[in-house]
Amino acid sequence: MAEKGISLRPHLKTAKSIDVARRATEGHSGAITVSTLAEARYFALGGFSDILYAVGMVPDKAAEVASLQNQGTTMTLITDSLACVTGLANKAGQMKCHFRLMIEIDCGGLRGGLDPEAPELITLAQAIAQSPYLTLAGVMTHGGHSYGVRGLEKVRDIAVEERLAVTRAAQRLRAAGIPCPVVSAGSTPTAVAADDFEGLTEMRPGVYMFNDLDQVGIESCQVADLALSVICSVIGHNPRSGRILIDAGALALSKDTGGQRFLRDVGYGRVCDARGRQFDGLFVSEVHQEHGLVASASGRPDFDRFPIGMKLRILPNHACITAAGYGHYWVTNRRGEIEARWDRLNGWWDAPLTGSERVKLSAGS
Amino acid sequence: MAEKGISLRPHLKTAKSIDVARRATEGHSGAITVSTLAEARYFALGGFSDILYAVGMVPDKAAEVASLQNQGTTMTLITDSLACVTGLANKAGQMKCHFRLMIEIDCGGLRGGLDPEAPELITLAQAIAQSPYLTLAGVMTHGGHSYGVRGLEKVRDIAVEERLAVTRAAQRLRAAGIPCPVVSAGSTPTAVAADDFEGLTEMRPGVYMFNDLDQVGIESCQVADLALSVICSVIGHNPRSGRILIDAGALALSKDTGGQRFLRDVGYGRVCDARGRQFDGLFVSEVHQEHGLVASASGRPDFDRFPIGMKLRILPNHACITAAGYGHYWVTNRRGEIEARWDRLNGWWDAPLTGSERVKLSAGS
Repeated sequence: MAEKGISLRPHLKTAKSIDVARRATEGHSGAITVSTLAEARYFALGGFSDILYAVGMVPDKAAEVASLQNQGTTMTLITDSLACVTGLANKAGQMKCHFRLMIEIDCGGLRGGLDPEAPELITLAQAIAQSPYLTLAGVMTHGGHSYGVRGLEKVRDIAVEERLAVTRAAQRLRAAGIPCPVVSAGSTPTAVAADDFEGLTEMRPGVYMFNDLDQVGIESCQVADLALSVICSVIGHNPRSGRILIDAGALALSKDTGGQRFLRDVGYGRVCDARGRQFDGLFVSEVHQEHGLVASASGRPDFDRFPIGMKLRILPNHACITAAGYGHYWVTNRRGEIEARWDRLNGWWDAPLTGSERVKLSAGS
Repeated sequence: MAEKGISLRPHLKTAKSIDVARRATEGHSGAITVSTLAEARYFALGGFSDILYAVGMVPDKAAEVASLQNQGTTMTLITDSLACVTGLANKAGQMKCHFRLMIEIDCGGLRGGLDPEAPELITLAQAIAQSPYLTLAGVMTHGGHSYGVRGLEKVRDIAVEERLAVTRAAQRLRAAGIPCPVVSAGSTPTAVAADDFEGLTEMRPGVYMFNDLDQVGIESCQVADLALSVICSVIGHNPRSGRILIDAGALALSKDTGGQRFLRDVGYGRVCDARGRQFDGLFVSEVHQEHGLVASASGRPDFDRFPIGMKLRILPNHACITAAGYGHYWVTNRRGEIEARWDRLNGWWDAPLTGSERVKLSAGS
């Protein structure tokens, strides 16, 4: 991104770790992206002061955002809805605070965001620009549909769609006389594959910090680039089903099967020895809460090679979801020795609710 | 179970909560089942002193078990492997401690356990019985394949398989002159459906404390029996895809789709209003990390009925997996008001207890 002259605003929803965030922003402005307000609070406490909350805002979360702002954090919120803008302006007026907003653009993922050609884009931008309590920071999009194609050539086409959608929206705003300083896009595949960033000001990839089998399938990385894995033990052999039992199941690995889209013999993760060397064709074929069943693509595994108690390392499908099962990371050096324990955050804002917040929640319509 | 004269040893892997455990064992011996040694430690700190760790043991975990035993907890472990028995006996000799074991029997799930007719059953039991460091407590099985059938009639057949497998193993041990005091079985579906417990001494259901759409599909409960749900907000409307966006995605709901086996229009969860009244045909059709996309089985939902900020309640597929995304439960009364916050444990042994857990447990009743 530095080479291309584009700001990097890394998405910390994968790592959710202050230790990872510091490394991801070395020699950098410190601008980050988060997916929950609990992450925003965690990173704000860790010294990050420029945070984009990249999930559609609702007025009910205004008090949490205001509390972060009151402690010196610059928060940027996203919206695609006039109801949200009106509600937020009202809240800001009541709380005597100010909110900074970006308009979310749908570049093809059919998730959040306005179509870049939608008439509502201008109406919404005007509503924000005209409120004394709101500022329009710009437009943003996420080319999440880059996960649906294989190979950098095809991802590059999605990156073009992503860029054209959000730059078109910026162009329309500017043509209507509305300033649009920030033009933000990004997913790991599109950030890796794109060769043209014309009109963008920032990119927001996140998974690239760890990578996973999902990214290997998309071809945005190689297996050697995977930083996150789950270590476990062989706990049994089932001769009737020809499977090895491990003590890593649905909670340790997650039920994500994203890597299966483009790779064979993935299941719930590929199986390596403790040092991370893959066993050819060995994968987790079934998971229960704390049990994984390991099968071999080439017939029955030789149980003698996998004695009870042997440590195995599983490469996960989707780093974001697997990591969420853990309260911390164990960090190893190149020799496989543990060198550090890195913190991570899980959960949502409600952790320490006050009495009055409880009442509000229970009164929810 | 009391009516049938069977001990209940509830499985706490679903709830992982000291508050739930106290209620589940009211007027009861306090015997419980867990799926990780972290749970064992947590419940031991909470005053539970008779704990079955129902995942295949490996000798490497002996020190953790011994540390719990040294603090006064009676731990029971399970195994189906001579390598484990030999390794555990060696560890026990070194550590000058004693381990209590049950032999795991496979009643058809093809996960852990010996076939009840396997010659190794007798060899294994003799190895345990003959070690001065080990005690054979009995035999146990889990009819997890009860999740693969629909309707109590069919579950009843699995319950018979479960019972016959484990009682047959007990009979073979006794015929060989080896005492087998405990004969343990159980899953929520088989515990609900079984009408004959002859030969069993205890049952170990767990999900019944909360229930979920998976159980509704199996017909072991009704939707009205679901105690666990996820509250979230409407954060957007996508007119191009006809879907409502909510701020509950893969982390809030899990990627478990167990309920889809036997129910239609389930996706990643069914959608209710904040009070828990289901919207007909409305379900979470797609999840991303923090986004859920709600679709209607009967065409496009009427967005006006689901304004931005509206609170919705999602019924999950699988309570065990969904609950693991949270550090605590909010407990509501019949009017939907929050009355309490109940603690829960996540993670594995290497994670220290959080501050609030420590405070709570040290003050615990």
